[in-house]
Amino acid sequence: MDSDAEARAANVRLLILDVDGVLTDGRLYFGPQGEALKVFDVRDGHGIKLLRAAGIEVAILSSRRSEIVGVRARELGIERVLQGEADKLAGFKRLLADMRLSAAQCAYIGDDWPDLPVLSQVGLAATVADAVPEVRRAAHWIAPAGGGCGAVRQVAEFLLRAQGRFDAALAGFTEGRAHA
Amino acid sequence: MDSDAEARAANVRLLILDVDGVLTDGRLYFGPQGEALKVFDVRDGHGIKLLRAAGIEVAILSSRRSEIVGVRARELGIERVLQGEADKLAGFKRLLADMRLSAAQCAYIGDDWPDLPVLSQVGLAATVADAVPEVRRAAHWIAPAGGGCGAVRQVAEFLLRAQGRFDAALAGFTEGRAHA
Amino acid sequence: MDSDAEARAANVRLLILDVDGVLTDGRLYFGPQGEALKVFDVRDGHGIKLLRAAGIEVAILSSRRSEIVGVRARELGIERVLQGEADKLAGFKRLLADMRLSAAQCAYIGDDWPDLPVLSQVGLAATVADAVPEVRRAAHWIAPAGGGCGAVRQVAEFLLRAQGRFDAALAGFTEGRAHA
Amino acid sequence: MDSDAEARAANVRLLILDVDGVLTDGRLYFGPQGEALKVFDVRDGHGIKLLRAAGIEVAILSSRRSEIVGVRARELGIERVLQGEADKLAGFKRLLADMRLSAAQCAYIGDDWPDLPVLSQVGLAATVADAVPEVRRAAHWIAPAGGGCGAVRQVAEFLLRAQGRFDAALAGFTEGRAHA
Repeated sequence: MDSDAEARAANVRLLILDVDGVLTDGRLYFGPQGEALKVFDVRDGHGIKLLRAAGIEVAILSSRRSEIVGVRARELGIERVLQGEADKLAGFKRLLADMRLSAAQCAYIGDDWPDLPVLSQVGLAATVADAVPEVRRAAHWIAPAGGGCGAVRQVAEFLLRAQGRFDAALAGFTEGRAHA
Repeated sequence: MDSDAEARAANVRLLILDVDGVLTDGRLYFGPQGEALKVFDVRDGHGIKLLRAAGIEVAILSSRRSEIVGVRARELGIERVLQGEADKLAGFKRLLADMRLSAAQCAYIGDDWPDLPVLSQVGLAATVADAVPEVRRAAHWIAPAGGGCGAVRQVAEFLLRAQGRFDAALAGFTEGRAHA
Repeated sequence: MDSDAEARAANVRLLILDVDGVLTDGRLYFGPQGEALKVFDVRDGHGIKLLRAAGIEVAILSSRRSEIVGVRARELGIERVLQGEADKLAGFKRLLADMRLSAAQCAYIGDDWPDLPVLSQVGLAATVADAVPEVRRAAHWIAPAGGGCGAVRQVAEFLLRAQGRFDAALAGFTEGRAHA
Repeated sequence: MDSDAEARAANVRLLILDVDGVLTDGRLYFGPQGEALKVFDVRDGHGIKLLRAAGIEVAILSSRRSEIVGVRARELGIERVLQGEADKLAGFKRLLADMRLSAAQCAYIGDDWPDLPVLSQVGLAATVADAVPEVRRAAHWIAPAGGGCGAVRQVAEFLLRAQGRFDAALAGFTEGRAHA
């Protein structure tokens, strides 16, 4: 499976991220006014920056809607943020059209049932270690880490390694040009 | 035990949820004004929606009282929310009367001593992997996951599978009709 | 060690609780104005209520100071709350004098270096599974659970069992008279 | 490796701490206005105080910027706090110049790629159990605990033991002079 995943990863120009359960561990922090916090992983952030510095675009596609996601996306330089997409497949298709990309040029990482339609279409279907069984079965590649615990960092590294660009990207990063 | 639990699950028309330790992992986030946050699991939410879409009702029965529970319940479409029920058995009986259901048609999932009286009455007594020993002994079915970590999702799936309705419910869900 | 601990527990009339690392898991949630949250365990709360219902008093003794501790203590009916006690031994001695108890009638549960002076004086020195080595060595009894994860519940149960009063206390609790 | 690390530790007069992933577990708590909370470890705080009481200075060097870090630093008596240092090596060199120390007299503990340039210069390069592989390879000493879970406490103890001063420092601490 992994060699197939590597071949698929070689073509990827855009990584699309689910939010809850992927950029977070799926915990929803509610206060009296609704969702109050989301908890992201600082190392995922470095991975996303490395990926973008290497020219692979990153987008967010979520069925929930939260101002907090926009705040974190801005910090990471992610410009394409689709939220409140009850039908994720429709959002995915709009994204492809906007960016003039084919499905084969996209990787998507999701963890639960609403992600299945997109995972079945995308070039590289990725998921997290703690995804639900239906999603694990649909994935080409499963991150060793769980959601919110470095899985996005791992998919970023996997894409760069599959494209033979990890070492150069990291060298650039550690020369002081990147920051979190 | 499991085959008995399946037979019991076949009759269930209403799933009643304890809050702290079941919909959450039992951690109470306090600020200077009292309870400030509750942390729910996004996958539990999908399970609850799947259950409701399949026609099994969901209610909440808690001995504590928190505005936050109401907010989350509205998001999940749960209309029957009983809080501040020091005597949970009395709350359970009111719920049965309101909904014209028998105890045998109800499943209850709880994790601690205050849940014992209801667990001893209900058709299917369920609990979480990290419940206290007295509750584990009283349960017909124990979720593999702990409270706040997918246990409610698992009981929802267990009910639907026991009723032979899981695959159809999931197919509907992934056709874009459900969202979180 | 355990039989010695049981003999010591038989005399206990007052359980004194450290806060950070015992009633919590030692994580300090800071916002821009300082400590913003403390995270307590709902099951510890039931244990404390059971203990108090059985006539064993509970007090709090902390070297830090936080409004949040007072809020939680009120919810649990704990009236004696000593905070900001840089010298915990002095606070402990004031508490003994106020309550007209001997050190042998007290249990103390702490997890770190500042707790050592009190642990060396008290009738039953208890600690949590994840305490530092110096404290583990000083303890008569170590809870199987870590701080903030049920350790206080366990010491409450241990005290009641050692005094032969657990079953009666629990029976009272589940008859609907106690609530959390 | 450890005996080399001990020799290196013997010369250390200043411990420099990364924040996210070291003083915290790398989780970023975001609200609608950006980062809302940071979660520190109470035991790390005791370790830092013990170190300072023994005359080893402590500084903070972070590529992110957060008011919250300043609040926690003040509580711990850490006066030198460098934040927003995209180029950590430049910040490190300013710190050396300000304090009239050589790189060999400094220990640095970091967990991720941006820490590599400083780790390669410093007398004792330390990291956390859950650091990324590139950092683990660059470290002279790896704490048994993960970031935000006692790793800073462990590096503090390691430094004091390597200098033969742990027992005296702890004796002073438990005599009631230190508090958290």
